[in-house]
Amino acid sequence: NRKTVAVLPGDGIGPEVLDAALPVIEALGLPLDLEFGDIGWECWRAEGNPVPDRTWDLIGRSDAVLLGATTSKPRREALAELAPELRESAPQYLSPIIQLRQRLDLFANLRPVENYLGGGTPYRFCVVRENTEGLYAGLDWNHVPDGMWPLVAEHPNVRRSGRPGSTAGIRLQTSHGLDRILRFAFETARAHGHERVTLADKPNVLRQSSAYVLERLEAIAADYPEIPFEVLNVDAVALWMARRPERFGVIVAENMFGDILSDLGGGVMGGLGLAPSANIGEKGNYFEPVHGSAPAMAGRGRANPAAAFLTIGLMLEHLGLQDAAGSIQDAVRHVTRRRDRVTYDLGGSATTTEAAQAVLDACREV
Amino acid sequence: NRKTVAVLPGDGIGPEVLDAALPVIEALGLPLDLEFGDIGWECWRAEGNPVPDRTWDLIGRSDAVLLGATTSKPRREALAELAPELRESAPQYLSPIIQLRQRLDLFANLRPVENYLGGGTPYRFCVVRENTEGLYAGLDWNHVPDGMWPLVAEHPNVRRSGRPGSTAGIRLQTSHGLDRILRFAFETARAHGHERVTLADKPNVLRQSSAYVLERLEAIAADYPEIPFEVLNVDAVALWMARRPERFGVIVAENMFGDILSDLGGGVMGGLGLAPSANIGEKGNYFEPVHGSAPAMAGRGRANPAAAFLTIGLMLEHLGLQDAAGSIQDAVRHVTRRRDRVTYDLGGSATTTEAAQAVLDACREV
Ligand SMILES: CC(C)[C@H](C(=O)O)[C@@H](O)C(=O)O
Ligand SMILES: CC(C)[C@H](C(=O)O)[C@@H](O)C(=O)O
Repeated sequence: NRKTVAVLPGDGIGPEVLDAALPVIEALGLPLDLEFGDIGWECWRAEGNPVPDRTWDLIGRSDAVLLGATTSKPRREALAELAPELRESAPQYLSPIIQLRQRLDLFANLRPVENYLGGGTPYRFCVVRENTEGLYAGLDWNHVPDGMWPLVAEHPNVRRSGRPGSTAGIRLQTSHGLDRILRFAFETARAHGHERVTLADKPNVLRQSSAYVLERLEAIAADYPEIPFEVLNVDAVALWMARRPERFGVIVAENMFGDILSDLGGGVMGGLGLAPSANIGEKGNYFEPVHGSAPAMAGRGRANPAAAFLTIGLMLEHLGLQDAAGSIQDAVRHVTRRRDRVTYDLGGSATTTEAAQAVLDACREV
Repeated sequence: NRKTVAVLPGDGIGPEVLDAALPVIEALGLPLDLEFGDIGWECWRAEGNPVPDRTWDLIGRSDAVLLGATTSKPRREALAELAPELRESAPQYLSPIIQLRQRLDLFANLRPVENYLGGGTPYRFCVVRENTEGLYAGLDWNHVPDGMWPLVAEHPNVRRSGRPGSTAGIRLQTSHGLDRILRFAFETARAHGHERVTLADKPNVLRQSSAYVLERLEAIAADYPEIPFEVLNVDAVALWMARRPERFGVIVAENMFGDILSDLGGGVMGGLGLAPSANIGEKGNYFEPVHGSAPAMAGRGRANPAAAFLTIGLMLEHLGLQDAAGSIQDAVRHVTRRRDRVTYDLGGSATTTEAAQAVLDACREV
């Protein structure tokens, strides 16, 4: 009953953190076959496509996808780095991870936040971010498009700016998108014993859409009578994450709100070096550290491999290997609390490899 | 050369924090005439209008408006609390502060963040939030409106949800709105000696609109060659505000991003009890603590008056009374650092009145 894992190291610090953390799979003797594939910036520059067809094939035949990191640049910069002969034929540049989320319909982005460093109040919550709609629906225009024009034309700023000076984007929320992410939030709370589900929204400003979201929330919550829920303003959630993270269980949010809150979760934890993520749908998944590719740091052996370990942990949970996942999490907790073999971002001086070795050692001990 | 200040205590803890802080105006012997007016929840319940006409008149003849706090509830709750005979004729309920911002065109929301509590690295930056467009343009629908329908109909989630199950809002950004807020950001950096202007945006996702915002940023920045600027992802700004607030000078952001980041600023500072705000336009202004009306806390003498003092400070700066503003800020710094007469939110046990007295005493000393 072996499983196949597609390993896509990507670019920047992606390859080095995966290199450092992957040995844990052998160390724990897990029944996984790793197959390596290409993704990211180098593919874009060489082939005009950050996710080549062979990688989609590999993903298609894998049980899980483990991603290192990929660089996402704005279109202008991305095109500038492309060989001229590729510029014509290249598909419109789109961040590889956005492509994965869209094409595989990975609607749930799960980002656990925990006081791994110890000190202060313990906390453990997660951000469940909707991953397929909201402000990320790909509906964004330099100039207001035709059908939308009558809707915005009377706004005082539009009247003074004229059409060429007015840009707009759509924040889309649908029953399909809402119901599945809300259900995922309650399921996560149930599975991980979180006390409460908090919807981070903005009902006193986005009155119409929020009223609809609340309707869906109440409908879904009815299936989870044992789990209390609340709606908080997204700004208040940001504030309280910084002040009293222990008050949260599962925070569920629209794509962009979830993006902001989950990065903030990294900040609360003491940096993205400790932040893993799972992107999950019916048809696929991928797991990656929340930190980006950090090109300026690549190749210097300074990147923290902890997020990669925790990401592997999330993947193992998803594959039903809960015990192994627990061992990895315990090992990371053990090492980060002692702080003697941690990387510079946590105040240590260990290299990526040394810090990874500390976790591997702890995996054997704990 | 006396100035008129409209004082609108509002509801919840608004009246008590203003009561406590207002004596500083007399204590410093400032040439201001205070005129009190009504706003907020009580007006809504009694008159079906949270900002009565007489209050607009008062605002119209004042040089500055000082607000305590007002309650903003979602429409459903707001209507439920209205006497039945008012429900028919009442204008659509809209948060009083959103009304002030819209009707007076108060495009800039300035929210300074500073390490008032001391301890750790000193920092002092501010969030400049656009206040009249973005996701707050009032363009939000329960069901996708006609003209917009063809734009969203092909989205996979919309196809599965149908029209009744699809909600949408517009995030609007215009040259008029962008240019004035960006200019305000650079002017603030110049006036307050901030090192850098950071635009918090999402260029790798909201590609079209962000490209336009960047164009405007580059155009406006050309008038301020001595002030460096950068564009960061809004999620990264949230993370770094929590991790290294000292890296920021002026952060400028679209309305909703600015809402989240400035509340987070309150969290970073140690709570909204220390967060003041200025809402400024060509035709008017209002100054208010960032904390809300906190109805559950009202009347218990526990609210921190510091934000109200700092808000009065911002108002005095705006009225050209820089020295008095500086004295108030120094007094608040002095008291919060010593921590002996502060309210419970800062770990003390002083009442609102006692904490205010400490600031008033310090104003005389420093
Ligand atoms: C790289 C970017 C497109 C991505 C996002 O905004 O979703 C990243 O910030 C993340 O949070 O995974
Ligand atoms: C009360 C609410 C409408 C308001 C806002 O979202 O702007 C508040 O959160 C603020 O930040 O001033």
